[in-house]
Amino acid sequence: MSFLPFLLQAQDNDLLKYVNPLIGSDRMGHTYPGATVPFGMVQLSPDTDTIPYEMNGKYNKDVYKYCAGYQYGDKTIVGFSHTHFSGTGHSDLGDILLMPTTGALQLNPGTAAASEKGFRSLFSHENEKASPGYYSVLLEDHDIFAELTATPRVGVHRYTFNQGGDAHLILDMMHGIYNYDDKNVWTFIRVENDTLVTGFRQTNGWARTRTVYFAIVFSKPVESYGFVNNAPPQVYRGFWRRFDQRTNFPEAAGTQIRGHFDFSVSKGEQITARVALSPVSTDGAVANMLAETPRSDFDTYKKNAETMWQAELGRVRVTMMNNDHMVNFYTALYHAFLSPTIYMDNDSRYKGLDQNIHTTEKFENYTTFSLWDTYRALHPLFTILQQKRTSDMVNSMLAHYDQSVHHMLPVWSHHANENWCMIGYHSVPVIADAVVKGIPGIDYNRALEACVTTARNGWYDGLDDYMRIGYVPDERTGSSVSVTLEYAYDDWCIAQIVTTPDRASPYQDTTIFTEFTSRSRNYRNVWDPSTGFMRPRKTDGSFRPEFDVLSTHGQGFIEGNAWNYSLYVPHEPEGLIELMGGRKRFTEHLDSLFTMDLPDEFFAETEDITREGIIGNYVHGNEPSHHVPYLYNYAGAPRKTQYWVRHIMDTKYLPAPDGLSGNDDCGQMSAWYIFSALGFYPVAPGSDRYDLGSPLVKEAVISLENGKQFTVSTINQSPENVYVKKVELNGKKLDRSWIAHDEIMEGGTLVFYMY
Amino acid sequence: MSFLPFLLQAQDNDLLKYVNPLIGSDRMGHTYPGATVPFGMVQLSPDTDTIPYEMNGKYNKDVYKYCAGYQYGDKTIVGFSHTHFSGTGHSDLGDILLMPTTGALQLNPGTAAASEKGFRSLFSHENEKASPGYYSVLLEDHDIFAELTATPRVGVHRYTFNQGGDAHLILDMMHGIYNYDDKNVWTFIRVENDTLVTGFRQTNGWARTRTVYFAIVFSKPVESYGFVNNAPPQVYRGFWRRFDQRTNFPEAAGTQIRGHFDFSVSKGEQITARVALSPVSTDGAVANMLAETPRSDFDTYKKNAETMWQAELGRVRVTMMNNDHMVNFYTALYHAFLSPTIYMDNDSRYKGLDQNIHTTEKFENYTTFSLWDTYRALHPLFTILQQKRTSDMVNSMLAHYDQSVHHMLPVWSHHANENWCMIGYHSVPVIADAVVKGIPGIDYNRALEACVTTARNGWYDGLDDYMRIGYVPDERTGSSVSVTLEYAYDDWCIAQIVTTPDRASPYQDTTIFTEFTSRSRNYRNVWDPSTGFMRPRKTDGSFRPEFDVLSTHGQGFIEGNAWNYSLYVPHEPEGLIELMGGRKRFTEHLDSLFTMDLPDEFFAETEDITREGIIGNYVHGNEPSHHVPYLYNYAGAPRKTQYWVRHIMDTKYLPAPDGLSGNDDCGQMSAWYIFSALGFYPVAPGSDRYDLGSPLVKEAVISLENGKQFTVSTINQSPENVYVKKVELNGKKLDRSWIAHDEIMEGGTLVFYMY
Repeated sequence: MSFLPFLLQAQDNDLLKYVNPLIGSDRMGHTYPGATVPFGMVQLSPDTDTIPYEMNGKYNKDVYKYCAGYQYGDKTIVGFSHTHFSGTGHSDLGDILLMPTTGALQLNPGTAAASEKGFRSLFSHENEKASPGYYSVLLEDHDIFAELTATPRVGVHRYTFNQGGDAHLILDMMHGIYNYDDKNVWTFIRVENDTLVTGFRQTNGWARTRTVYFAIVFSKPVESYGFVNNAPPQVYRGFWRRFDQRTNFPEAAGTQIRGHFDFSVSKGEQITARVALSPVSTDGAVANMLAETPRSDFDTYKKNAETMWQAELGRVRVTMMNNDHMVNFYTALYHAFLSPTIYMDNDSRYKGLDQNIHTTEKFENYTTFSLWDTYRALHPLFTILQQKRTSDMVNSMLAHYDQSVHHMLPVWSHHANENWCMIGYHSVPVIADAVVKGIPGIDYNRALEACVTTARNGWYDGLDDYMRIGYVPDERTGSSVSVTLEYAYDDWCIAQIVTTPDRASPYQDTTIFTEFTSRSRNYRNVWDPSTGFMRPRKTDGSFRPEFDVLSTHGQGFIEGNAWNYSLYVPHEPEGLIELMGGRKRFTEHLDSLFTMDLPDEFFAETEDITREGIIGNYVHGNEPSHHVPYLYNYAGAPRKTQYWVRHIMDTKYLPAPDGLSGNDDCGQMSAWYIFSALGFYPVAPGSDRYDLGSPLVKEAVISLENGKQFTVSTINQSPENVYVKKVELNGKKLDRSWIAHDEIMEGGTLVFYMY
Repeated sequence: MSFLPFLLQAQDNDLLKYVNPLIGSDRMGHTYPGATVPFGMVQLSPDTDTIPYEMNGKYNKDVYKYCAGYQYGDKTIVGFSHTHFSGTGHSDLGDILLMPTTGALQLNPGTAAASEKGFRSLFSHENEKASPGYYSVLLEDHDIFAELTATPRVGVHRYTFNQGGDAHLILDMMHGIYNYDDKNVWTFIRVENDTLVTGFRQTNGWARTRTVYFAIVFSKPVESYGFVNNAPPQVYRGFWRRFDQRTNFPEAAGTQIRGHFDFSVSKGEQITARVALSPVSTDGAVANMLAETPRSDFDTYKKNAETMWQAELGRVRVTMMNNDHMVNFYTALYHAFLSPTIYMDNDSRYKGLDQNIHTTEKFENYTTFSLWDTYRALHPLFTILQQKRTSDMVNSMLAHYDQSVHHMLPVWSHHANENWCMIGYHSVPVIADAVVKGIPGIDYNRALEACVTTARNGWYDGLDDYMRIGYVPDERTGSSVSVTLEYAYDDWCIAQIVTTPDRASPYQDTTIFTEFTSRSRNYRNVWDPSTGFMRPRKTDGSFRPEFDVLSTHGQGFIEGNAWNYSLYVPHEPEGLIELMGGRKRFTEHLDSLFTMDLPDEFFAETEDITREGIIGNYVHGNEPSHHVPYLYNYAGAPRKTQYWVRHIMDTKYLPAPDGLSGNDDCGQMSAWYIFSALGFYPVAPGSDRYDLGSPLVKEAVISLENGKQFTVSTINQSPENVYVKKVELNGKKLDRSWIAHDEIMEGGTLVFYMY
């Protein structure tokens, strides 16, 4: 049994062919199809539209489609920008858009309905290719074949001009994702010489005070260039204008600038543009360029990017029942390895939360922490597959804490900013999980101090009341129950740090352990026995009279209704089961969740997901219930866990552009799939346990950073055989429904006998 | 003769008492009265009003009064901001305004007519004191005695609360000089702890892309604080606002922010606020604070500032005919030593023109180069009194050149920006003057390369035409004659660098010398023999038919009319005299200039000066004619030079707030006075000669940096004895009307025999 997979792997070294970056690019997935390397700082990808976030002072809901800049259903591409989130449900970025054109110069993007009126172009999916580290498309309006690849800090464009004549590269500094009128705080461009352009874009968006610096090198000298400033003219700005600043004038600055770089090209000629980014300065961008892409050698950089992806994806080598599963698995692994992203220059400098420049000493600095999503499965996955990066990410969070004037670990942070998105303080479970699992390179005492201080910030989102009366009262926030439940879980995580062996604490451990263990039981304070649901509670102790257990809005929850969120006690399922009346009634509750009919009116309120993201009233397209299928294990009904886990994998993950049933959320949706496909899942990060489910793989070999291998294999695996008869770990029958982290790390074989 | 002055000096060590910083603070002088140290980065001064630069899209001419933030005639003070230009005719800055208040919190500035409706306060000159390094005023509305002092990079405030009760320090980030609606590109504030606040202000003004970072330390812990954002609310900004960000929330950012810091004070209690600036980062500001003002010790910093001023002013010790002259002289020396200002942190880092952070290695970095003004007399004065700083300033200009994407030396630069104000490339005469005079620490070849490259930038303000046809044609710019004349002079300066001994040039000297000597004669190309004036000329070679020799506007000149500007050939007066028909006719022309009647209609067009700034048609309040009184020397009429020079000193410089007849222009007006009072003047910087005039001093001892002393003394000096019978240098009669720079530097005595 163990010999065959090795043969298969040897024959099947090209894992890239299983990755389809276009999965999730239609409708709600919010993934981007462009070129990037694992955890790369540059995400170079086509943007298909530029819907503003608000129009006339009102929120424009259509912007939501463009969280990643690309919608598969669109017919035109506006250009290629260098920063993108993968799978988020709010957005930012889309920095430094380049677009090659031919013919007469056009300096407006045009419209989707009339691409010929601007620089954008029609394209067809038939002429589009997306694979790890590489993207290409034929820009039909200009008859230009565009190819993209990337290094960690540089996006590389290669444009093949199928016709000779006048050509232009448009540099659109006005472009951005989730743009609004004054999102551009400032932009600055310098044409250093006829092949080098530098500058920066500073925005006020999801990140309030964000600057990205860039350097662009063209493979061919520019013949002429110019800039237009689309801002309304001001009295002052023309005052000293004694020379033409529009044409061949090498510096431009303002909030609404577009530039053009003009070339004459022969038929079939190629122009390469390298675009390096930096969070520090244009000097930093130039240094990154020199370090990573010293020459205009697209093919080499493409090959390097692909080699990096092969190595990362090769950490797990699976054999599955069919090719669709292979595509699902490796695309999920690809999406899981996109973010958090590195956020530092080659010289180890980065911009900190305090807007000062810092130098990392012992870690690589990461950003884009979508923690409300990713603490659940993505970061736990990294504790197995990316231990070095886990250490770096935890140290990045601790650096954020050190730089935080709020004395807070990240909530949702990106690009030297805290955007305060969503609820809880879910750096804590990520850190606790890493500490409990013994990830090297983390100072446990420093980690504990940061977590404790974060969790005692009374000003934060009802924490003062929570600390005083044991729950966040309904009067304080519309999400009072969700917040209370998640604080309770996060607090349990802090207690787990305290109990981790070999930690020489400067604190009185007993005090902290007692405090946070006590807080971890606060979920009981929002339990309403009269309805059998968690329910918003007022400061005076009474439950709110009006209460709809199906509605997602205005009921004390966020991105989930009472049915789903009442199950959110990942750290103490036994306690929850007791509250809910014991195992039998709890199982019935779960059954109802998966099988009841959710009226359309309630789905319409559910954010971020498609109708297909729901099973009964169970919502897989959002995160709060991701652990729920595994709760049957705790009620003595593991077959039901096995059934629903396989059902979710079969129906909520499809190898098509619209195959993701909700936002991928920086890899959380994908990480759920990877874990579940491997046959286990971290119900409560911060513990060292993974609950067993029903593997989808026929076999998986995980190559660990410690040099060992952990193999999951199956007997009698088939699409119908979703149930697990027995499980053997290293040849010995497992008499429990979980495996421990150390059991994986020690290497070995886990065999599932299916039926 | 040489003993007496030493005695006088010994008895008269307090030079500060002769300085009145309020001189020039009324009407057109545009000086500021606040606290600063010589060439300091911080200029901490009261602002009396906040007139916006434009209103409803139109230029608001009243803003002009507030170039320095203060008008002596005003009745209220809005607060104390930390950056000010001295004497400019356009403006910027006014960063980081603090204002102490008592009673109920008011977060708007109120109006001059109703100070009680805002945080501003009435004040009286009776309760105001301004002296070098110190300023104090009673803020009547709040009964607070406010005192200001400074170190090079820190402004120190001490507020004495004459009444106990509620007190506030207002931090107005919206405030600024020459403000307009979107001048604030971004502002950022962090309350690091209960005594430390950091942040930055980024503006788009005269400097297009400017950021000043700050750190504030209060001597007493803040009890509470808050911020208001006066920008229109946006859809986005409230989206994730799950907690109060207005009160005691330690981070604020936006474009329209005011903050308040609240204290309870007892009667007579003092609160000190130290405000450090940095061009680099808030980290840099904090480091500057720790280096320069580690404690809340106002009195020590005040004493240090005064000691610095005593040392700088003591470089010239004069005895004069009366106290008014003493006040005029030392106030002029004070104003001459305000700018350029240092622009670097204590750790030698600064922001460069390329917006990157640079570290100076061998020089101190300076900014605020008002070169069209200051090349004439201020920088030449520094070649005698501030040789070390001259070297630093030249190296700062060369660094600017290195960082310039335009390959240009500074034109008018401040705070890491080129604002392109005025005409010519007058870094060249400053550099040439320093090279010709042998100032140490300048790489001559690098200097020549920068000057030559600057002067060959065809895109700049008609230079292409100038290089092609020998003048800037009228079609290109409204200032074509002024530009041509100044280019010709600047070009002559370049030729002087070439001829400086001991320069091992990488260029073919002959080529450059020939090219620029030839260009230096281009003044002849705009000479119109038919009218006897310099006159706008068209591309086809013809002179413009319509031409008014009295009008300042639209006649091909800037800040001067044809009468004045036609005399602008400082490098070749003999050539000009020849053009004008010889010495006699030239003398008659000068006589007419000084004695003719300029009708009011023409004065009304003359910018930046008061009616008192004019003698006949000679305009002293602007710069283009500053050399003109000395031109009589070249026509064989030195008595007329002597007469008019004394007349100008007597009538255009008065020891009163409205005593300056025009903008002090970063010290140029003051430097003219200092030179003239000493009895000599640099007609053509770039030569090593100073033309002799008529000294106003009875005696002056100049202490040179080389340890030597150069003494100017007079025999028979009196208000009436304005003429010079003979001059002796080191006891030998001088048979020429000039002295050489080296003669000063070697030390010695210059005696004027007056009658």
